[in-house]
Amino acid sequence: MAVINGSSRENGNTDALTQKALDGIQYTSFYLKKHKINPIDDQRHDVGGFDKVDDDYEELINQILQHDVLIFATPVYWYGMSGVMKNFVDRLSQSLRDEKLNFKERMSNKKAYVITVGGDSPRIKALSLIQQFQYIFDFLGTEFVGYLIGEANAPQDILSDPKSLGDALSFNKVLSKYTEE
Amino acid sequence: MAVINGSSRENGNTDALTQKALDGIQYTSFYLKKHKINPIDDQRHDVGGFDKVDDDYEELINQILQHDVLIFATPVYWYGMSGVMKNFVDRLSQSLRDEKLNFKERMSNKKAYVITVGGDSPRIKALSLIQQFQYIFDFLGTEFVGYLIGEANAPQDILSDPKSLGDALSFNKVLSKYTEE
Amino acid sequence: MAVINGSSRENGNTDALTQKALDGIQYTSFYLKKHKINPIDDQRHDVGGFDKVDDDYEELINQILQHDVLIFATPVYWYGMSGVMKNFVDRLSQSLRDEKLNFKERMSNKKAYVITVGGDSPRIKALSLIQQFQYIFDFLGTEFVGYLIGEANAPQDILSDPKSLGDALSFNKVLSKYTEE
Amino acid sequence: MAVINGSSRENGNTDALTQKALDGIQYTSFYLKKHKINPIDDQRHDVGGFDKVDDDYEELINQILQHDVLIFATPVYWYGMSGVMKNFVDRLSQSLRDEKLNFKERMSNKKAYVITVGGDSPRIKALSLIQQFQYIFDFLGTEFVGYLIGEANAPQDILSDPKSLGDALSFNKVLSKYTEE
Repeated sequence: MAVINGSSRENGNTDALTQKALDGIQYTSFYLKKHKINPIDDQRHDVGGFDKVDDDYEELINQILQHDVLIFATPVYWYGMSGVMKNFVDRLSQSLRDEKLNFKERMSNKKAYVITVGGDSPRIKALSLIQQFQYIFDFLGTEFVGYLIGEANAPQDILSDPKSLGDALSFNKVLSKYTEE
Repeated sequence: MAVINGSSRENGNTDALTQKALDGIQYTSFYLKKHKINPIDDQRHDVGGFDKVDDDYEELINQILQHDVLIFATPVYWYGMSGVMKNFVDRLSQSLRDEKLNFKERMSNKKAYVITVGGDSPRIKALSLIQQFQYIFDFLGTEFVGYLIGEANAPQDILSDPKSLGDALSFNKVLSKYTEE
Repeated sequence: MAVINGSSRENGNTDALTQKALDGIQYTSFYLKKHKINPIDDQRHDVGGFDKVDDDYEELINQILQHDVLIFATPVYWYGMSGVMKNFVDRLSQSLRDEKLNFKERMSNKKAYVITVGGDSPRIKALSLIQQFQYIFDFLGTEFVGYLIGEANAPQDILSDPKSLGDALSFNKVLSKYTEE
Repeated sequence: MAVINGSSRENGNTDALTQKALDGIQYTSFYLKKHKINPIDDQRHDVGGFDKVDDDYEELINQILQHDVLIFATPVYWYGMSGVMKNFVDRLSQSLRDEKLNFKERMSNKKAYVITVGGDSPRIKALSLIQQFQYIFDFLGTEFVGYLIGEANAPQDILSDPKSLGDALSFNKVLSKYTEE
């Protein structure tokens, strides 16, 4: 199980909720912010395809693809995923064009979850973000099994929101069924 | 009138549709890709607020704020705005905390439009992006007057899509009523 | 071409916009309000299936199924389709269970459009209605080709809204390509 | 606390989930199907306003308005609320015009919840229904506090879906804080 984390700060609410949701479960964290991931140059329609990019994306996606269950954890920034997460997602287009990677087929065998935390009525206003992830996973053939929306503002607020914690517990039960290599 | 353009390549479909929609209208273009805009460090809750960032964001937002009508033009990447655009939007949080900027009040006097072009059923699958922009503008108090969704895949395809062109024409009529300083 | 009209009053804004959008095009109108259509009794899981219902639904759906292009025209009531239209849509479940009707296969060969008129920011707040129709048509295998959203409040207001009329004109061009038997 | 139930059959999955969610809590049920509620005649713009309608709506809304917490429980039919529920909601327009009722002010002091059960990926595909309710409650000034989405198909299936039951438990904790007159 891999957690792909788009937070801009460690130990924030997204982290805290993710840790609650994954309590007792083994997983590998990928903090996108710690890696150099350039915005995409859209070369999908260039004859030569995408140029090689001098950053960490390719190695990162190779490591992520080792895992069967992917959890996308992102704060809700301006009613969407963080820019750091979005730059990572945009680069998936490059993996799609990388024939030797066999990207889409590998993604179609994985299960995905989303964990997101926002401050402004996220259980309503983050629904378009959930919808966006659904389209992303539909395109990739990845099963979007479930999502967890937490509500918090100031750091560590999430730990005092009973609804978020209750839902994290319910989420934890669902995730506990995976026992990974 | 300002066009805030989140395309990763110039002369793509988003550009082409934007130019059609703004034909005969005076405006200033801001290509985000040409500027250095770092992802946000979320310091909203830090005692000292946001650190000064060594990039082009601050100058850019100052220029954009000179305009009364803002047009956000972005390709649909993975069913959302481009990562370049998202990083820019995320940084608005910094402007919100900048007391001398008077950001929210100034934004509340502006009108906003969105132009977006996608390849995979954007008139349905980009609706969550439109919804996201609605939340953004609601938060800022900016009037979200209208949007234009185009459909295209390969470069310049947009110019052969009669529905996109028809809608651009209708959009052009609406925008023509603005005569800027 | 068939127009399935869920208005509660004739000659309202939905009618007026539909007539503009279909100007010069031959079509058959079905005013749901003029027919007796009971709410569904959910007998999908009953051993004997659905009981025969003493109303006009069955004859109506048989007539509608004669047409290749279906236009669902409904006012936006409380951010959704009208109750009259919803009762009709709910009854489609009954047609699905009617083996001799071959309903789903026939629907999968049709094209669908939606025309809707609302008073409270329908170009944003009716998008969940458009999404709902997308799910409906996806389920039936019907191609959802396009939609037209008009904005109006008092009767006949629609005729003085330039954006609605401009979009109706663009819609009319798209629909003009159909010439029905 | 009042449950406004739009199911077409008693003892279905919507009922079962609602009972789980409200276990140990005192409430009054209103089964819309058992009452005669006509579709609305849209007379909002008639000089004389709405005609008196010979059905149960007016008495029903008077009883419902006695309660401070309203729970709208509906199956997901065709990705929306049931037609029976929609006809009831449409009639709220009539209450809005009824000056002596003081409808909007009374609704603005209430809290609302939604419980819904669907068979086709409701945690994604019923989100437009949740959005629709948000718009409805926004318009009325009613606080939309939370929602519960269950997944089930055949009758009583809901009782074997651990995710639905876990969420119902979490929902129950939230609702338990209300102790009504």
